[in-house]
This record gives sequence, C-alpha cells and structure tokens, in this order.
Amino acid sequence: MKGSKYGTHRVIKNKGDLPQPAEKIDNNMEIYDNEILIEVKTLNIDSASFTQIKKEAGGDEKQIEKIMQRIVNNRGKHHNPVTGSGGMLVGIVEEIGEDLKGKIELEVGDEIATLVSLSLTPLLIEEILEIRKDTDQVDIKGKAVLFESGIYAKLPEDMSRNLALAVLDVAGAPAQTAKLVEPGDSVLIIGAGGKSGTLCLHEAQKRAGISGKVIALEYSQEGCERVESLGLADAIIQADATKPTEVLNKIEEVTNGELVDLTINCVNIPNTELSCILATKDSGKVYFFSMATSFTAAALGAEGVGKDTEMLIGNGYTKNHSEIALQVLRENEDIKELFEKIYL
Amino acid sequence: MKGSKYGTHRVIKNKGDLPQPAEKIDNNMEIYDNEILIEVKTLNIDSASFTQIKKEAGGDEKQIEKIMQRIVNNRGKHHNPVTGSGGMLVGIVEEIGEDLKGKIELEVGDEIATLVSLSLTPLLIEEILEIRKDTDQVDIKGKAVLFESGIYAKLPEDMSRNLALAVLDVAGAPAQTAKLVEPGDSVLIIGAGGKSGTLCLHEAQKRAGISGKVIALEYSQEGCERVESLGLADAIIQADATKPTEVLNKIEEVTNGELVDLTINCVNIPNTELSCILATKDSGKVYFFSMATSFTAAALGAEGVGKDTEMLIGNGYTKNHSEIALQVLRENEDIKELFEKIYL
Ligand SMILES: NC(=O)c1ccc[n+]([C@@H]2O[C@H](COP(=O)([O-])OP(=O)(O)OC[C@H]3O[C@@H](n4cnc5c(N)ncnc54)[C@H](OP(=O)(O)O)[C@@H]3O)[C@@H](O)[C@H]2O)c1
Ligand SMILES: NC(=O)c1ccc[n+]([C@@H]2O[C@H](COP(=O)([O-])OP(=O)(O)OC[C@H]3O[C@@H](n4cnc5c(N)ncnc54)[C@H](OP(=O)(O)O)[C@@H]3O)[C@@H](O)[C@H]2O)c1
Repeated sequence: MKGSKYGTHRVIKNKGDLPQPAEKIDNNMEIYDNEILIEVKTLNIDSASFTQIKKEAGGDEKQIEKIMQRIVNNRGKHHNPVTGSGGMLVGIVEEIGEDLKGKIELEVGDEIATLVSLSLTPLLIEEILEIRKDTDQVDIKGKAVLFESGIYAKLPEDMSRNLALAVLDVAGAPAQTAKLVEPGDSVLIIGAGGKSGTLCLHEAQKRAGISGKVIALEYSQEGCERVESLGLADAIIQADATKPTEVLNKIEEVTNGELVDLTINCVNIPNTELSCILATKDSGKVYFFSMATSFTAAALGAEGVGKDTEMLIGNGYTKNHSEIALQVLRENEDIKELFEKIYL
Repeated sequence: MKGSKYGTHRVIKNKGDLPQPAEKIDNNMEIYDNEILIEVKTLNIDSASFTQIKKEAGGDEKQIEKIMQRIVNNRGKHHNPVTGSGGMLVGIVEEIGEDLKGKIELEVGDEIATLVSLSLTPLLIEEILEIRKDTDQVDIKGKAVLFESGIYAKLPEDMSRNLALAVLDVAGAPAQTAKLVEPGDSVLIIGAGGKSGTLCLHEAQKRAGISGKVIALEYSQEGCERVESLGLADAIIQADATKPTEVLNKIEEVTNGELVDLTINCVNIPNTELSCILATKDSGKVYFFSMATSFTAAALGAEGVGKDTEMLIGNGYTKNHSEIALQVLRENEDIKELFEKIYL
C-alpha cells in the first residue's frame, strides 16, 4: 500500500494536518510501500528540547527516560510539546518499501542520519540504553519511519559519527552560501565564529575568489581569534550584532562606504535583523539562517530605512546540502581539527 | 547641521537604537539640513493600533484624543506601546533641508504620503480636528519630520486621496510581483480577493503573459466572485489556505501535477506557510507579503517536506513601488471601480 509522499496517511490527530504540526501520528512499524524503516541507534534531541526535559526531570536519568517515553507514547514522535522542537536520529536501514527499491541510493544495512525533524518522524522506543547529558544524545533500541519526501544522509566513512552529526545539523548554511556567493562578491558573515558561521566562511571564501572579500563579524574576543587562526576572512570585525549603527559604521569602514553584496546571519540570538539590512547594498541580499529571526522585524525594518534588499528565509534544506557541508571538513583540515576539539 | 541618514541623531532613549525600536525620539520641529518638514493633514493609524486605542477609550472620542496625545508626548512619535505599530500620514511639504534642496523631486507645497511607519516618524500634534472611527483616519493640526532615508509618494492628481492611500498601504505587493514574475510563469496568489491580492493579480497576469498561468486562491464565495468578475485569473480555487493537503491537491489538479513557479501570499491570517511551500515547485519561489508569516514555520516547514523552494520575506519597500501600485488603478478601470466601492 502506498502512503502520501509527505506522510499525511499517518496523521491520527488532527486529520488534514501534515505530520509535523499534527498532534499525534501513527507509529506502527509496518511500513507502507513508499516508506523506509530504520533501526535507530541514537537520538540527537534538539538542544532546546533536551534542556527542557532535563530541567523537568531535575537532572534524574530515570525521569528523563520517563518523559521521553511519555512524549513518544502520546504523539507517536519525539515532538516536545513544550518547546515544539524535535532533533534528528542516526540508525541502520532495516527495510525499504517496494515502491522505493532501486529508485533511491540506499541499501539495507546503510548507516544514515535523518535530516528531517524528529517532530515529524514516526518513532518507537523499545528501550533507552544510554543518556549522554552533555551532548544531548540518547542511545536507544527502537525503530523509526522515513516518508518518501524525508531527507537523509549516508554517514561518511572518513570521519567519526559525532563529527558528521555536528556538521549535518547546520548543513543548510554552507550549502546556501555555495549557491548564493558569486565570484567577486563582498560577503559579510555575522556570527562567523560559531559552527554554521565557520562552515560558511570556508564556502564564501572559495566562491567569492580572490576578487571577492569575506568579512567576519563576531562578538567575543575568543571567537575573533578562532576566525583569525583559520585565515578565512579578509577582515574581522568584533562587534555586537544587536547594535545596528555600530555595525553599519564598521562595515562602511572596511568597504569604503560601499556595503556588502551578501550578508549571512548565523547568530543564535534575536534582534540582529537591522544590522544585516543596514550592512547590505540596496541591490544585495540577506540570508537569515538564524532561527531567532523575526519576520516582522525584517520586513518592517527594511521598509523603515527604505532599503530594497532581498531577504531570504533560511530553508534548512537545499539540494546536496549534506554532501556540501561534509565536503568542507575534507577540504579544510583546520576546520576539521577545530570541530574535533569542540564537538567530540 | 546634518543628521544621520536614518535619523539616529534624534534618538533620545535608548541611544544606539534606530528611531523605530527607540523608546523615545526628539520631536523638536526645527529640522536638520537633511530632513524634510511636513505640515500634517491626516494620520492613518495602523488598524491594529487604532482598534486597541478605541477599545481602551471605550469608544469615546475625547479619550481617543487623550491617548493619542499621551503616546506622542511620551515617545515623540505615534508608536503605540501596546501593539508596537504605527501607520502613515498625509501632509504638505513645508520646508526642505539645505542639503536636500534640488537633489530630490519634492517642492515646498507638494502633497505627500509618507511610506515609512509612524512608529519612527518625529511627530507633533497641536490639535486633533476630526476622528473618523470607521477608516482609522484622524485629521490633525501638526507637524512631522522625514529623515533622509525616509520614503514618500507624491499624491496623484487623477484619483482621490483616500483611494491613493488604500493602494499605497500595500504598494510593496504589486511592485514585487512585477519584479518576480517572468513571462510564461505559473503564479499562485493566495488571498487573491483581498486588497493586495487583487493588485497582484493584475501585475501577475500582465507579466506572465499569454504563455503564463495565473491561479487565484480565495477563502470566501464572495471573494471568488469578485476575482471572477475581474477576469484576471486563469483558474480560481476556493479553499482554506490553512489546510495544506487540500491546497496541494487542488493545485496539482489545475497544474497537471507540475505545481507553480511562484506563490505570492497575501492573506491576513497565520498558518498558511505550508500551503505555499507545497504548492510551489522545488525550483520555485514563495513571496510572503503577509505579516502573519512565521519565520520558523516557513524554515522548518520547507525542511520537513524536503523542498528546496526559495522563500522571500516581504519587504514593504521596493524601488518605485508607489508608482507601480498607483499605475494598476490607471491601467485597470475595473479594479479602480471595485476599490472605490470598498475603500472610499
Ligand atoms: N535554518 C535552519 O534550518 C537551521 C538549522 C540549524 C540551526 N539553525 C540556526 O542557526 C543559528 C546558528 O547555529 P550555530 O550552531 O552555528 O550556532 P553557534 O555555533 O552557537 O554560533 C552562534 C554564533 O553567533 C555569535 N553571536 C552571539 N551573539 C552575538 C552578537 N550579539 N553579535 C555577534 N555575534 C554573536 C556567537 O558568538 P560568541 O560565541 O562570541 O558569543 C557564535 O559565534 C541558530 O540560530 C540556529 O537556530 C538554523
Ligand atoms: N509586507 C508589508 O510591508 C505589508 C504592508 C501592508 C500589509 N501587509 C500584509 O499584507 C496582508 C494582506 O493585506 P490586505 O490589505 O491585502 O488584506 P485583505 O484585503 O484583508 O486580504 C486578505 C485576503 O486573505 C483572504 N483569506 C483570509 N483567510 C483565508 C484563508 N483561510 N484561506 C484563503 N484566503 C484567506 C481573505 O479572504 P476572505 O475575504 O474571503 O476572508 C482576503 O481576500 C496582511 O497580512 C498585511 O499584514 C504587508
């Protein structure tokens, strides 16, 4: 039997919704002909969600287990009702639906990471094996289902699972950078010392080429030194991205008043929309990867200062994003070393 | 003396902010060399703001006056502290700063509408002359200041002031449509029977041409009949934009499963992001003009269904947007008649 590409056939409550907004989905592990069954090894709970669960549990592991089981029993998916967020998972392909066999690059036995949120993935937890509180990872015995539209990445053999996961979490950012940057562009990366920012720096420098200019903006001294040591930026600015006039002055300085062609926002805090808008040329683009972006602050902010700048919502997915993101670590030994220090 | 292009020289509280987010700005009516002084005739209070004020005043006009005066006394601008919104104004150019003379197309005596929000415009109300509760308009004796970056439109002589104002309120939508639609495109307009939707229909049909296809989606029977009578759509779909699977099915039907190149969201309600994403080709674009758009719902929604669609934040401003929007009424007598019926 064939299900809907988007998994609506599994929605139990409320019918008509897609699986993500749905209150409850069916986590029966008999798959439809266009689904994939995964033997789950590890859940990577979204950081906001896991923080909330740890707090509710008072840090107690038995309580954490109970809360996780309750979420999945109630909803058929690990969709935290308080934070609204999910996470991702790693596992082994156990069965491929009849309709998909031969049409996809997967084989039974492949180790994959799902790149759609746990907040829409049918999940069954048989047993919780180990909780790693520091890295938000939970090893389980259990199964999950991937819909036909679900995206995934085969885990690479040339790097550790945890390193790959850290990179895949923000794969959209470097991949979009690769798509948006043209040779000769001036590119500003805000939050350049963070995980997604660092990957974007590499792609921006590669795509803008020697006639281009890459500007890194970072908040902390430490972050600036990290960027400096990677040697990927033509200019490094230490500034607070929530202070638009300060940012504008510094960008005018390093661009001779011309501003930049493209700004990529990789921060993890709110109220940075206007800095991005003011730093960018009228004919330029702003790419908001940060989930802390406010739609109205961006739309009204641009109007308020009379800027015609194109503003893009950071779609977490773009074609080949996992390949592009993992490739950065292969191309850049320094970033790989840095990430191994921070994320392993 | 020259002030900052963006008006930061008038920020009293909190310094470093731009005038819009600022708590209080200076509404002294002696202008800087790069400012414009306006003799205000009418304030168009933002609908959300005026509804709140009327409610707080219990509908009493004297109380409405008091609340409006209090807002401007406290903040130097008509920036409603409850709703956060402003509105726009109409007035006569009284003085042009030394630095701007001859550099802009304005002359003393011109009647203009400001196209930046009242929430950032220095304003002084000397007297409130008339409150028109049904249309959110308030005639005053007073003055306002436009910054160098402030945008405005000269009121046209070939249509009434109120008609022009109704159109200028949503000028960004048809202007962006004009920019985004290519000949031969299939274009879906969601909320096509509303004010911005109708203007977008006209531009979309004009730009897509005979090889293109314009699809109008509307909620009410009445709205569909309005669209039908204008004859601007190749297909009209009556559906609820908050129901993504219903919308997807209907769009697949009218496009032979191909989906559309461009979706323009002109609704006034939340939870319509997924309908737009599902209706649009992988290689297509979604333009979110609606202020009820949620950034995270769009970003996570697209990832959740594995769509590579480009998603744009509806900047209220784009070059020549007021000219493009007013021109629609000149080109299309039917829309002009319709709008005169509804908005005068
Ligand atoms: N669109 C999507 O699909 C998607 C997917 C995953 C993640 N995200 C979003 O991407 C964002 C970044 O993720 P990440 O993992 O790269 O985060 P991260 O590693 O924590 O990096 C955030 C960076 O922002 C910098 N920053 C913080 N406050 C700043 C300020 N006031 N001025 C300038 N810089 C400041 C931080 O600098 P310091 O360290 O110096 O404070 C840090 O370098 C998050 O908002 C996340 O929600 C989006
Ligand atoms: N980005 C900017 O700078 C900017 C500037 C101004 C306005 N806006 C925004 O633009 C939006 C539209 O403004 P407007 O003046 O054109 O509004 P409008 O005239 O009220 O039109 C809204 C349209 O949406 C339709 N609609 C409502 N619920 C629907 C549903 N469930 N399914 C399908 N259609 C539905 C309405 O249909 P019915 O009448 O049949 O219910 C109506 O035709 C607002 O959200 C506003 O905030 C943005």
